Amino acid sequence: MAGIFISFEGIDGVGKSTQADRLEEYLKERGRKVIRTLEPGGTELGQEIRHLLLHRKGDVDARAEALLYAADRAHHVATKIRPALEADTDVITDRYLDSSVAYQGAGRVLGAEEVRDLSIWATRGLLPALTVLLDLDAESARDRRNSTGDAPDRLEREKLDFFEAARNAYLSLAAAEPERFLVLDAKQTPDELQSQIRARIDSLLEA
Amino acid sequence: MAGIFISFEGIDGVGKSTQADRLEEYLKERGRKVIRTLEPGGTELGQEIRHLLLHRKGDVDARAEALLYAADRAHHVATKIRPALEADTDVITDRYLDSSVAYQGAGRVLGAEEVRDLSIWATRGLLPALTVLLDLDAESARDRRNSTGDAPDRLEREKLDFFEAARNAYLSLAAAEPERFLVLDAKQTPDELQSQIRARIDSLLEA
Repeated sequence: MAGIFISFEGIDGVGKSTQADRLEEYLKERGRKVIRTLEPGGTELGQEIRHLLLHRKGDVDARAEALLYAADRAHHVATKIRPALEADTDVITDRYLDSSVAYQGAGRVLGAEEVRDLSIWATRGLLPALTVLLDLDAESARDRRNSTGDAPDRLEREKLDFFEAARNAYLSLAAAEPERFLVLDAKQTPDELQSQIRARIDSLLEA
Repeated sequence: MAGIFISFEGIDGVGKSTQADRLEEYLKERGRKVIRTLEPGGTELGQEIRHLLLHRKGDVDARAEALLYAADRAHHVATKIRPALEADTDVITDRYLDSSVAYQGAGRVLGAEEVRDLSIWATRGLLPALTVLLDLDAESARDRRNSTGDAPDRLEREKLDFFEAARNAYLSLAAAEPERFLVLDAKQTPDELQSQIRARIDSLLEA
């Protein structure tokens, strides 16, 4: 497969889309074909699954939820990501399997290992060549999402604990696969972040 | 868990609902609480997943399809089947995990083992105490579904081959778990079939 597969990861508010936009621009400047995509919902079927996951009332069983995310991912890889890579096109995705492992692991109902196994099966083992993890503490990320800056109430505190657990899960994943991950402190400026991402891409393209 | 969990399996047209109806009647006569359910679509979320699976245009990747069926099953077991069994209620379901293994195995893209593993994970290992397999050749089952009896054209022939493969997959599953399965020749009369099912239920209730 001649295209490069790149995922952006991190909790909401860390600046994934800005960096992905600029990386897309850079790859195009270098004369490469690129597509941008996201999870959940990178395909038409995926949009319907995303709707089931995010917009319905009532609880969804934890395993059912993990299976729905994996179904979205399987279809996404089979019908969009893999065909693009095989047609020499780079693929930049906003979230991929590490999101499932980090968030569902943080939910504490399912283990990281079983959630990962599910995605590996769903995608027939397709891992990104590069995963950019934008790392930021949960409170700063929240402040970027909504600029109120009020002190957190109890519910907000629980949410912050959840996102902090997801952040830590991401850091463990990165530590386990240092070759694949580029971990960046998201407190840096957009320019600083982008230049580190481009440096890594350059070395990937040379290899 | 004090309720008994019973599944009916077999290709379409073998008479599963008739036998399930009469078994429900029998269990109620014996003073037991019973619920009837089905897959896919035994819950509200399951209905939406069923809709994705059966009514949308365009192909669904084989792994995505298997994961959607497993998601339906996970939610079904967690929110309906297991709570009923724990409340001393018998559960009769029209199709359960053997359907996935038989049909997706027959599709020849995925292996029986991996499809089964997925369902075992989805259901946290919940297997029926009794699975009634109504066995019939694919051509007779088709004739029961539509009473035209015309000679099959090429497309129909392919469908018959598929259902015959599913039938054979069912028979292999039953051979591997003789304790759980009751295999009945569906060419027998409804009364004959029901009396054999009731005999097996009686011995389960005595045990």
